[in-house]
Amino acid sequence: MIISMKKGTPQTEIDKLVCFIENKGLAVSLILGTNYNVFGIVGDTTILDEKSIRANQYVDEVTRIAAPYKKANRIFHPEDSVIDVSGVKVGGQEKIAVIGGPCSVETQEQILAIAKGVKEAGGVMLRGGAYKPRTSPYAFQGLETVGIEYLCEAKKQYGLPIVSELMSIDKLEEFDEYVDLIQIGARNMQNFNLLKAVGTLTKPVLLKRGLSNTMEEWLMSAEYIMAGGNDNVILCERGIRTFERYTRNTLDLSVIPLIKEKSHLPIVIDPSHATGNWRLVESMSLAAIAAGADGLLIEVHNDPEHAWSDGAESLTIENFATLIEKGRAIAHVVGRDI
Amino acid sequence: MIISMKKGTPQTEIDKLVCFIENKGLAVSLILGTNYNVFGIVGDTTILDEKSIRANQYVDEVTRIAAPYKKANRIFHPEDSVIDVSGVKVGGQEKIAVIGGPCSVETQEQILAIAKGVKEAGGVMLRGGAYKPRTSPYAFQGLETVGIEYLCEAKKQYGLPIVSELMSIDKLEEFDEYVDLIQIGARNMQNFNLLKAVGTLTKPVLLKRGLSNTMEEWLMSAEYIMAGGNDNVILCERGIRTFERYTRNTLDLSVIPLIKEKSHLPIVIDPSHATGNWRLVESMSLAAIAAGADGLLIEVHNDPEHAWSDGAESLTIENFATLIEKGRAIAHVVGRDI
Amino acid sequence: MIISMKKGTPQTEIDKLVCFIENKGLAVSLILGTNYNVFGIVGDTTILDEKSIRANQYVDEVTRIAAPYKKANRIFHPEDSVIDVSGVKVGGQEKIAVIGGPCSVETQEQILAIAKGVKEAGGVMLRGGAYKPRTSPYAFQGLETVGIEYLCEAKKQYGLPIVSELMSIDKLEEFDEYVDLIQIGARNMQNFNLLKAVGTLTKPVLLKRGLSNTMEEWLMSAEYIMAGGNDNVILCERGIRTFERYTRNTLDLSVIPLIKEKSHLPIVIDPSHATGNWRLVESMSLAAIAAGADGLLIEVHNDPEHAWSDGAESLTIENFATLIEKGRAIAHVVGRDI
Amino acid sequence: MIISMKKGTPQTEIDKLVCFIENKGLAVSLILGTNYNVFGIVGDTTILDEKSIRANQYVDEVTRIAAPYKKANRIFHPEDSVIDVSGVKVGGQEKIAVIGGPCSVETQEQILAIAKGVKEAGGVMLRGGAYKPRTSPYAFQGLETVGIEYLCEAKKQYGLPIVSELMSIDKLEEFDEYVDLIQIGARNMQNFNLLKAVGTLTKPVLLKRGLSNTMEEWLMSAEYIMAGGNDNVILCERGIRTFERYTRNTLDLSVIPLIKEKSHLPIVIDPSHATGNWRLVESMSLAAIAAGADGLLIEVHNDPEHAWSDGAESLTIENFATLIEKGRAIAHVVGRDI
Repeated sequence: MIISMKKGTPQTEIDKLVCFIENKGLAVSLILGTNYNVFGIVGDTTILDEKSIRANQYVDEVTRIAAPYKKANRIFHPEDSVIDVSGVKVGGQEKIAVIGGPCSVETQEQILAIAKGVKEAGGVMLRGGAYKPRTSPYAFQGLETVGIEYLCEAKKQYGLPIVSELMSIDKLEEFDEYVDLIQIGARNMQNFNLLKAVGTLTKPVLLKRGLSNTMEEWLMSAEYIMAGGNDNVILCERGIRTFERYTRNTLDLSVIPLIKEKSHLPIVIDPSHATGNWRLVESMSLAAIAAGADGLLIEVHNDPEHAWSDGAESLTIENFATLIEKGRAIAHVVGRDI
Repeated sequence: MIISMKKGTPQTEIDKLVCFIENKGLAVSLILGTNYNVFGIVGDTTILDEKSIRANQYVDEVTRIAAPYKKANRIFHPEDSVIDVSGVKVGGQEKIAVIGGPCSVETQEQILAIAKGVKEAGGVMLRGGAYKPRTSPYAFQGLETVGIEYLCEAKKQYGLPIVSELMSIDKLEEFDEYVDLIQIGARNMQNFNLLKAVGTLTKPVLLKRGLSNTMEEWLMSAEYIMAGGNDNVILCERGIRTFERYTRNTLDLSVIPLIKEKSHLPIVIDPSHATGNWRLVESMSLAAIAAGADGLLIEVHNDPEHAWSDGAESLTIENFATLIEKGRAIAHVVGRDI
Repeated sequence: MIISMKKGTPQTEIDKLVCFIENKGLAVSLILGTNYNVFGIVGDTTILDEKSIRANQYVDEVTRIAAPYKKANRIFHPEDSVIDVSGVKVGGQEKIAVIGGPCSVETQEQILAIAKGVKEAGGVMLRGGAYKPRTSPYAFQGLETVGIEYLCEAKKQYGLPIVSELMSIDKLEEFDEYVDLIQIGARNMQNFNLLKAVGTLTKPVLLKRGLSNTMEEWLMSAEYIMAGGNDNVILCERGIRTFERYTRNTLDLSVIPLIKEKSHLPIVIDPSHATGNWRLVESMSLAAIAAGADGLLIEVHNDPEHAWSDGAESLTIENFATLIEKGRAIAHVVGRDI
Repeated sequence: MIISMKKGTPQTEIDKLVCFIENKGLAVSLILGTNYNVFGIVGDTTILDEKSIRANQYVDEVTRIAAPYKKANRIFHPEDSVIDVSGVKVGGQEKIAVIGGPCSVETQEQILAIAKGVKEAGGVMLRGGAYKPRTSPYAFQGLETVGIEYLCEAKKQYGLPIVSELMSIDKLEEFDEYVDLIQIGARNMQNFNLLKAVGTLTKPVLLKRGLSNTMEEWLMSAEYIMAGGNDNVILCERGIRTFERYTRNTLDLSVIPLIKEKSHLPIVIDPSHATGNWRLVESMSLAAIAAGADGLLIEVHNDPEHAWSDGAESLTIENFATLIEKGRAIAHVVGRDI
């Protein structure tokens, strides 16, 4: 961490700050600049609070050099993490995991039909929302427990582990018992109580990036889960908010090589929510595979026009099968498989 | 709501969509354009899901004309709402409510000293965080229940209603019993389960705008609380995320006249979190009053340099008193008082 | 175009607006809504100015249905445009054009060495900045005319058409004479006088997307050039500004399928400026090819560490050759070639 | 400037970088961290190019401590700059300069009527666009030279210095001769050739902030003009692009105290373009005055509904007069006058 103090700061104030930092067991180097005095702080600076240092009237700027996350940091864990989701491996250098399913679980027939299609096409997990975060209180909020039951039946029939979104700590037990991969949605990426709650489990967690969050904030949210003792975190990019209006969000594929550089956690791409437009899903999926993604999360529906939510971004089962076929060819070029 | 369909859409598809909408009890007007066919939908369109209509391959665009919120909408409630927080009125055309207090409750002495200062300076409520949303799991997370107890003691001694942030539904009862104004933080603005939970109470709620949320999304979150039966909602602007780096966030003061145009709910401004810099708090507070704000939420600390969190944005008690004095003079010019 | 007027608008005001629009040769359909009156305007609405309509105090909202661009619109030009840059074709369904070269032309030796490398690796054009847009007036501003001369010599020796950025209309003649593909930089995407100036030429133009511009604004800037009579426009995505700090900008690859849907113009991707980090360039290039890009614009330097500008994002010649080789394999999968 | 190098960087590479920096006449301090080695660079670091240092494969991060601007920096020029615009003073601690006028000059009658109204209401300068930056090539582009002539006639009759936007260097002479305050528009804030051109004059320049630019970039653009020898720069905030859709842009009033802290240049606020909505102009103007603005730039029209451009954001002459009256009362409270 680097702290710059204003020119003309009294020596007693400089001494006070140095003393404060050294008392925390950190070493301090001082550089006298032309218009600023700069301190370099050496040691585990995650224990320092930048904002309280900035409160000092003589401090001009505080800059972190070392990343504020540890358990998610590749520096301290050089090899790729491979997360086991009820037998399906996510991460590492081989198989790319393709997860398919509807935005919302609607009926038992619907989810069984989609599960069958996802399985036959080569998908390895089934996604489906039972509890839905909707911007309007008047919109369909999900089938809740019944939705989870329908997913379990589909899992039983087709052998696909299930992924579903947990929105609130009062359903933690239900999800820990029935769901194979617990999704934390973009709007809850900084719902710290929810992160702490899933951190107490051993169940794998799919952590979506917040709509306007940086990669560092995202990794800090992964750190929350891991600090609680749950290392089974999979990161999922689902588009960030930008000024563009032709797409719902802007899919940031540069996270793929960057997350792999900064962290050991697997990275999965959700082009459906990112674009909000099924016509863009195939090309963005192929791009994600070419860039090195460890998995894809794709909305698939047996009847998109009559979907109860997010129909505009859902692939038909046929289009999903085509996507996997084309994706496999790209995967082979980059030394992987689906 | 306006739906535009592509040129060349088969008549049977047009008929199907018209039929679907009319079956929902809405009226449809068709306009034949040069390159598009456009439908106007008349009636209560809050029941239509834009995204499922967009899933139709013949649909080009869907545009809402009427706002998607009802209870928060001034059209249906022309007079200003005045919210009573344990005797302190917020909203309407007279008094501007100035709320002061530290980011975090730290010790009983600290919160009593600040409460005394806030009271003497002319503040009408005491804020203080007992549960803190922190980006790092390694940062101070708040005194929790003990913090609420300290606030209650300060309330008892100085008669100031207390404001504190609720982060999770498992503390709902505690907050309903002890806190006078329940704050929903920016990161939880779209934590829909939390919104529903406070919607079941009659206790007033201070709803902060999310870091990257539009006013419409914010009003939809207010709608969530009101749809549950709790009309006591106060909106609070605390800065939005922009590319600017000299401030922590960008304070959007245009919300003041706009929220008053679109909604009947009171609007309070938090310049401390918005700017992240105590040197900007006074001028932004005066600006907020000049623009018509119904209240201010100001971080005040008896010893900002040693604050356990957010010291950089806290005013001293002296500076807070000066702010109120100057603010009162501005308030008189715009026909109000503090 | 859709215009909504407030409930309670006097009939005379409605009549006045209808009359105003009909006098422009457009047809008007009126829909009476519950809380709004909505007009649909049919005909060539590019002649209407939304903002002056919004000035009417009775008008609530104005929404465009038809795109505001014509010449760049695929509706009126269904087949792909193929732009001929001194013999190199860009666009269409076959070859992907890979353009390489340094950020800045530095010396004759440098540009010759790089041109040789680009040519041997399979690049088809040479890029190099002679006039540089730099945020600091104290930074290197480019070799100017001498830089153009060095590029011409490289073109002569290696037969590669040259691409360079035009920053100001006073160099229009120089660029028309010597440069094969005139680049309009991101910061000049809405420098309308410059767009008009290159619109008077027949020389191909590479139009970069502005840092915070939408695709519609970008296509409107293409429209400016085409409205002047120059149809030879190639669009180039180079990343947009977001909150992310690990990358310089966020590369928006969804433009590839979307621009192809909305427009007939070719689309080229610049991953070097987008990411600002050479370690991300290869994976983003492969992603762009998988998504259907018509070309790549890559920074290549024979000695990146000593580059006079943008060294951090430059590939070495060896890495550039590897990128082309891998990219070709991806191109074959999607039915194209490099 | 702080440079951090990766752990394990060979000593020869460290020595090479130190040598490179010392050869530029700068001093280097080395801090050995736990996972990084950090250099502090002391001296005039504006001569170093961050990006070329980042190209070094051993470099992890480069951070500036000192601001990259000098002439615009208050550190080197502690007193407020007061700019004289043909006798009207802008900046300093007394008068707030209110500038009014239409978006576009339309007819001689229009501009004379508005000039009369602006003068009588207490405005001190007349604004009016003769060359207009329009996103559509099919929209009205301004009266050009005729517009300047109409403005000159209005100046002659009412004695108001005139402000107009220069879009291209080929009109530099015309503006230097006839216009009192040359406006550089938001879209040209980083049109570096235009900045250099006005830097060669002594004529005052009103530099608008770009739509997505930071304050530092804005000050760097001021630095471009001042580096050329023209110190007469007035900064103008006109709203930045955010996700909000109820306003055209988001007016960032925190620039007022911040620009005054970082720079000595005067700061003027344009609430008309920022909000795009005349109903918000008065409250945002009062807020700007309360926050300490040195001036206001207000769109005024004698017939907003029939304005040829931007009617939606124009005040009537009556409303402009009311705004000045109310603004004067606020100005008195903060120790200034209009």
